[in-house]
Amino acid sequence: MQPVNIELSPSSEALEGEFHQGDYLQRIGVRQISPSTSPFDPGYDPLTLEGHLQQSAHLMSILKISMACWIIANESATRRKVAAARRYGVPTVTGGGPFEIAVAQGQLSAYLDLCADIGVTRVECGEGFTEMPLPAAEVVKMAHQRGLQVQFELGKKHAGAFNAEAVDQLIEQGRKWLDAGALQLVVEARESARGVGLFDDEGNFNADFADRFASAFGFDIVLFEAPNKPSQFRLLDHFGPEVHLCNVRLEELLRVEIYRRGLHSDAFSNPKLRPRVENVAVQKAA
Amino acid sequence: MQPVNIELSPSSEALEGEFHQGDYLQRIGVRQISPSTSPFDPGYDPLTLEGHLQQSAHLMSILKISMACWIIANESATRRKVAAARRYGVPTVTGGGPFEIAVAQGQLSAYLDLCADIGVTRVECGEGFTEMPLPAAEVVKMAHQRGLQVQFELGKKHAGAFNAEAVDQLIEQGRKWLDAGALQLVVEARESARGVGLFDDEGNFNADFADRFASAFGFDIVLFEAPNKPSQFRLLDHFGPEVHLCNVRLEELLRVEIYRRGLHSDAFSNPKLRPRVENVAVQKAA
Amino acid sequence: MQPVNIELSPSSEALEGEFHQGDYLQRIGVRQISPSTSPFDPGYDPLTLEGHLQQSAHLMSILKISMACWIIANESATRRKVAAARRYGVPTVTGGGPFEIAVAQGQLSAYLDLCADIGVTRVECGEGFTEMPLPAAEVVKMAHQRGLQVQFELGKKHAGAFNAEAVDQLIEQGRKWLDAGALQLVVEARESARGVGLFDDEGNFNADFADRFASAFGFDIVLFEAPNKPSQFRLLDHFGPEVHLCNVRLEELLRVEIYRRGLHSDAFSNPKLRPRVENVAVQKAA
Repeated sequence: MQPVNIELSPSSEALEGEFHQGDYLQRIGVRQISPSTSPFDPGYDPLTLEGHLQQSAHLMSILKISMACWIIANESATRRKVAAARRYGVPTVTGGGPFEIAVAQGQLSAYLDLCADIGVTRVECGEGFTEMPLPAAEVVKMAHQRGLQVQFELGKKHAGAFNAEAVDQLIEQGRKWLDAGALQLVVEARESARGVGLFDDEGNFNADFADRFASAFGFDIVLFEAPNKPSQFRLLDHFGPEVHLCNVRLEELLRVEIYRRGLHSDAFSNPKLRPRVENVAVQKAA
Repeated sequence: MQPVNIELSPSSEALEGEFHQGDYLQRIGVRQISPSTSPFDPGYDPLTLEGHLQQSAHLMSILKISMACWIIANESATRRKVAAARRYGVPTVTGGGPFEIAVAQGQLSAYLDLCADIGVTRVECGEGFTEMPLPAAEVVKMAHQRGLQVQFELGKKHAGAFNAEAVDQLIEQGRKWLDAGALQLVVEARESARGVGLFDDEGNFNADFADRFASAFGFDIVLFEAPNKPSQFRLLDHFGPEVHLCNVRLEELLRVEIYRRGLHSDAFSNPKLRPRVENVAVQKAA
Repeated sequence: MQPVNIELSPSSEALEGEFHQGDYLQRIGVRQISPSTSPFDPGYDPLTLEGHLQQSAHLMSILKISMACWIIANESATRRKVAAARRYGVPTVTGGGPFEIAVAQGQLSAYLDLCADIGVTRVECGEGFTEMPLPAAEVVKMAHQRGLQVQFELGKKHAGAFNAEAVDQLIEQGRKWLDAGALQLVVEARESARGVGLFDDEGNFNADFADRFASAFGFDIVLFEAPNKPSQFRLLDHFGPEVHLCNVRLEELLRVEIYRRGLHSDAFSNPKLRPRVENVAVQKAA
């Protein structure tokens, strides 16, 4: 038995068989949806990550390599993960935590050099547990010089659920980062979706505040962290299939996506999500 | 580094070493048990699934490809999973959710065509969140025409814990499906085993109702969904090693199976489960 | 497509790229820490385990092959796991449960023969749910005769949180096992860290009792089971980066290790953990 390096790659073979999933989905009225979930890797092994890419790359908008885990992992494993995502056409983004630490330790240049060298597409910036002394424009410029895109995370990790004033300030902060060149904004919910951002201490979802972000920025710009089943289902129930979710665990990605398409038993009764037979006709006519 | 396609297969090599697990299990009095757990795949990647098959195929009665996840996954990944199970001698069954949606959308024939083409052994039917207009006999006939076996799921997903009347009706419904040609019945517990079927809102197990299903159908026919540790342990504590469990997460399968054999610290004191030294003599004599 | 056996191995290639994780960690003041976490495998598939070894072997002190799962798994899969760990330079230890059952069933010799033959480095002994009739010296001698190291687990699985008297007795018991030749001691917390050992029924951590174990034995000898996020974070907050944790799930290992290094958002404000810029100077001077 010889040691081998495994590298999965997108299959170029034609599909086997006579009946296909895509045709069936069209028949039952499932609408076409472009990738609208950004899953995250909080420390999976490289093989598991590659398996998920093989299975679900077409559903991933951008893959987050989460927290500082990738910096202390075996560097070959980290590079392998980023390369695998690229092979499957999925962009990658590092999380906001290591960015904040880099700024606090006075090493932002070195951090961005490392991110660019590892090959990620984008970095997330934020002020979740630190204060940022640098202006947005300067940070974005430093990233762009290294070929890196920028997204910004709105919200504090340790300040509890939002109040109306906080929402106002975050929307203003988001605008500032967009003006400076950031591409997207992320609304913080941590790993719990409890006592943080849009979710109170019991995990209740504040739909009014969520609407304010959505109407201020639109679904192409604003992503909502949805780290667990209740937050995922509440956001999809409220907004329908267009909402862009992030921080979804890889093994939960398919469940989120069947919910988004009304194919989960809890989603099928929701008229915003349920597949419609009239869609069939429309798609056939197209 | 060349991209390769990985395909695990059951090892045909003789076991290495001088001492073996099977001999040891016999020495400590662990009884032989035929595969009695149906694990489920709620969206694992194909490599992880294949690794579990390599490790535990001999403990799996039938593998459930759960919910509608497989329909929106990359079709090659879905076909690969089903083919891997076949290679390891494990039959496969699709979950009840997509069946119900197929019926509701008027596309049952297309659904069964797809299942047969993908290569699954069996489909699960049910009325968990919809009402079924079609008679059991017609559904079973349509499945059989495509070479597919049938199992039926008993219980509603959103109607809370069973009462005595519901149990009566479900037993009657189960008999009807068996008469029509279904092979097995599944008692619903969702992912939570709380506020559903045999489990009340605090997760307490209704042993009397469970006994009614067991005595009506026997352990060869009725499977109990046991999606988490408390439900798994309660069912095994109550019924002993013969009970057939399903909806067990793949990474929990080995824990369920050591519990079933009395090899878990919480099972060892239960006389129904604890391995018995007298078994040793019996097995030696055999 | 030919079936192949996959075997990952530590990469011997030089790292790609110009900027590297190690240099960056030094720049931001992260101290060098020798492997201080013993992750456990409660039933993962062999490929996932090998992926984690590839990614994190340098962070693992010893890998626990947990409970009796490995004895009922496919034997080739078990041997493959142990061989993979050895290839990555990570020692392995079997859990205390199967040891206790072996003693209770009168088959300790056969158990140790099997462990040695499978290739594990060490066995864990304990009295978590049984009483041990054999003296420590005899057990250690039997293990040593087969080339196996010994560690001992302190605490009962079903007796609730420690009281002061229990701590005294466990420290005495630990000394006896060390005198007999055991190398390390493990403080029991099960999978829950609730109502067991150092953790009360609400999961509150008893820092005084933990300190007693640490000062009696030191961090080279005593390991604390930390099976979930709250127990992991509490132990690191209290003791700082030197504490040795065990029973950490493989997919949580990197999160524990970034917390230990002050690179997690919840750890960065803790002066015991936060990376220090003065470390940079010290490391440069060294």
